[in-house]
Amino acid sequence: MNWLDEVSWDDKGLVPVIAQEAASGDVLMFAWMNREALQKTAELGQAVYFSRSRGRLWHKGEESGHLQTVHEIRLDCDNDVILLKVTQLGHEPGIACHTGRHSCFFSLYKDGQWVVTEPVLKDPGSIYK
Amino acid sequence: MNWLDEVSWDDKGLVPVIAQEAASGDVLMFAWMNREALQKTAELGQAVYFSRSRGRLWHKGEESGHLQTVHEIRLDCDNDVILLKVTQLGHEPGIACHTGRHSCFFSLYKDGQWVVTEPVLKDPGSIYK
Repeated sequence: MNWLDEVSWDDKGLVPVIAQEAASGDVLMFAWMNREALQKTAELGQAVYFSRSRGRLWHKGEESGHLQTVHEIRLDCDNDVILLKVTQLGHEPGIACHTGRHSCFFSLYKDGQWVVTEPVLKDPGSIYK
Repeated sequence: MNWLDEVSWDDKGLVPVIAQEAASGDVLMFAWMNREALQKTAELGQAVYFSRSRGRLWHKGEESGHLQTVHEIRLDCDNDVILLKVTQLGHEPGIACHTGRHSCFFSLYKDGQWVVTEPVLKDPGSIYK
């Protein structure tokens, strides 16, 4: 059986993807892949997602230069979630978030509120020309 | 604004949730929450998910004893994904997966195949009576 057929694609042909920084263990972002995106990710060794808003493949870093080198592709016990272990390229420390932050998970729940915890490392206006 | 209203719930009233082990950084599992599950998680300091298959709240560990203490609740930049930092209770090392493994992400892509990489720490038959 083809490895791509073992993935339980949802009714839109997508699978959720968690990107984790290999060196730090930080969870950087969450995105989606379709079959073609997963195949390209394996072929290139770089993260290729499917952008639901743009309705097309999204080679992460194609605009920003913030590519992700993929070290591991993992599948969960129900075959319906992917975990990538990546190195986030293009800046030190890595910027995965479109807001210019290291990780997309910068809002922390505290006493009934969401509090921003991570600094903006680079102005988003200078990331996306 | 109520913090629960700031979450972008999907058309089924759910949000995807990543559970990461606080001490090791290991991504343990992926699940879903509805509004009530997230509120209870914050109140109890233990992970409460929404089981899509059972159509009801799922207090993680309610059958297995493998509860998750929640140290942090984080929200991503689009307000539509939750990240929990947890301690996985009930076994040492922690068992988050219903297969008796530490993590649900035990299948690794290698040369066109998914390869099982993590040992079963406890027989699932003895976890779920």
